[in-house]
Amino acid sequence: MAFVPKNPEYAARVVQSFAQQTVMTTIGAAIGNVEPGVVEITMPFRADLCQQHGFLHAGIVTTLVDSACGYAALSLMPVEDEVVSVEFKINLLSPAVGQHFRARGEVVRAGKSITVCSGELVALADGIEKTVALMQATMMAVRYASA
Amino acid sequence: MAFVPKNPEYAARVVQSFAQQTVMTTIGAAIGNVEPGVVEITMPFRADLCQQHGFLHAGIVTTLVDSACGYAALSLMPVEDEVVSVEFKINLLSPAVGQHFRARGEVVRAGKSITVCSGELVALADGIEKTVALMQATMMAVRYASA
Amino acid sequence: MAFVPKNPEYAARVVQSFAQQTVMTTIGAAIGNVEPGVVEITMPFRADLCQQHGFLHAGIVTTLVDSACGYAALSLMPVEDEVVSVEFKINLLSPAVGQHFRARGEVVRAGKSITVCSGELVALADGIEKTVALMQATMMAVRYASA
Amino acid sequence: MAFVPKNPEYAARVVQSFAQQTVMTTIGAAIGNVEPGVVEITMPFRADLCQQHGFLHAGIVTTLVDSACGYAALSLMPVEDEVVSVEFKINLLSPAVGQHFRARGEVVRAGKSITVCSGELVALADGIEKTVALMQATMMAVRYASA
Repeated sequence: MAFVPKNPEYAARVVQSFAQQTVMTTIGAAIGNVEPGVVEITMPFRADLCQQHGFLHAGIVTTLVDSACGYAALSLMPVEDEVVSVEFKINLLSPAVGQHFRARGEVVRAGKSITVCSGELVALADGIEKTVALMQATMMAVRYASA
Repeated sequence: MAFVPKNPEYAARVVQSFAQQTVMTTIGAAIGNVEPGVVEITMPFRADLCQQHGFLHAGIVTTLVDSACGYAALSLMPVEDEVVSVEFKINLLSPAVGQHFRARGEVVRAGKSITVCSGELVALADGIEKTVALMQATMMAVRYASA
Repeated sequence: MAFVPKNPEYAARVVQSFAQQTVMTTIGAAIGNVEPGVVEITMPFRADLCQQHGFLHAGIVTTLVDSACGYAALSLMPVEDEVVSVEFKINLLSPAVGQHFRARGEVVRAGKSITVCSGELVALADGIEKTVALMQATMMAVRYASA
Repeated sequence: MAFVPKNPEYAARVVQSFAQQTVMTTIGAAIGNVEPGVVEITMPFRADLCQQHGFLHAGIVTTLVDSACGYAALSLMPVEDEVVSVEFKINLLSPAVGQHFRARGEVVRAGKSITVCSGELVALADGIEKTVALMQATMMAVRYASA
């Protein structure tokens, strides 16, 4: 599926909004590839973001994939719209172990109000890539009234 | 529903495992009430864990509720079992704003292998409580081989 | 939570719309209790709606609970709005066996556009009630243009 | 992803189990393509399986996609295992209109106990294919004790 962005400055907008997500700085995440309907976010492993067995916590996995999906949706929205997560569902396929992680969000269907996305988290462990989580997410366009 | 824990030391076990989740220290979360099949986790607002509009990021909301659900499940498991998240789905009901947050996980059905939980996040804003997220989660008991 | 319906004829509207769902007649379902934000649908067991082990098929379970949730949402909407299912997630807690089934949908949060519902299916087997499925659903208000 | 089936008779097994799902005969569904980890189910439109606007009911959409996912999972299981749906989440992308429908279930990750699947429903309307629903499902292998 090739999407045509309504906002020609879509990539700059995603990068700018990402920079305003303070949680991304806190967890050490960076914005990666940004295309119409596809956004990637990367993060190196951090021992201070783990669950009790030393794997990346499922909530941190979710943080990365949710933002990747949200920004994939935003990349196709007109400049007046903001994006909010309505809901998402994530399956944890295998333990989030590795030196590096890459979240990818992809628009499946872009509606006027509702955008549905697929997301995943890939772990890079000793040079081998493994999908560790799979998300299906519902995003919504909202317009905040300006003062 | 009143559940009878298989492990009489269930509360100590939950508290101990929570202490091993490094992400909880990093985000400033604390374990709260622990009963058979019910666990609460609390966290004050943190400006460095937000999304682009200054609300707590949905992934951090998820981190709290997922752990509350996972530990609710663990509280009913025999001592040999560990808990892992199979999957969860969360609806974001309203922006996560406020001074304090309380996640609550509750077991709906405890099976031998699969435990289903309901979870929520309540925000305390200027003395008023509001439910900001609702989760339905699937947890699984696993046994790691000892060396 | 007590909801105030925007449409005073909410119950008649739900009953009328239910009567237009041809699938409900086909599977032998009936509308039950209708209150603001709560709708129940009942169905006797049918051997011709089963999966390979003789239990009610998960898709038929879903049919009942989805409609109960959708009509719970519709009961709170203004008369101009129609309801559509955006998405739902259902956990199958135990086999759908019994002589009779009762689906219940309940509004958790009613927004202008998005309504979030909880749903369940209860089986009545030999006089004993058992919850066999739990749903978390996202409904949306839409307005179809009149010709 | 190429999967190697543990049961060389996997296709016959899927076809045989499908024939035992009485709901499939009732709604007029037929088993289609069966490969290791991939199963398709087809159904012509039926006016007696609709919701209030004359579209195929989301629960019938779900019935088709859930069975496609369950049988995709079963196709990779050893002969001793049976498959049950733990849970699934489905997004309704557009109204289920058309003359013919094809559900497709695909294994994303096959574990010993848990199998995660992706599913979709495609509608064929006037010669044009359109994806109308997207599912993410969790299936489980169970062994029923023989008498």
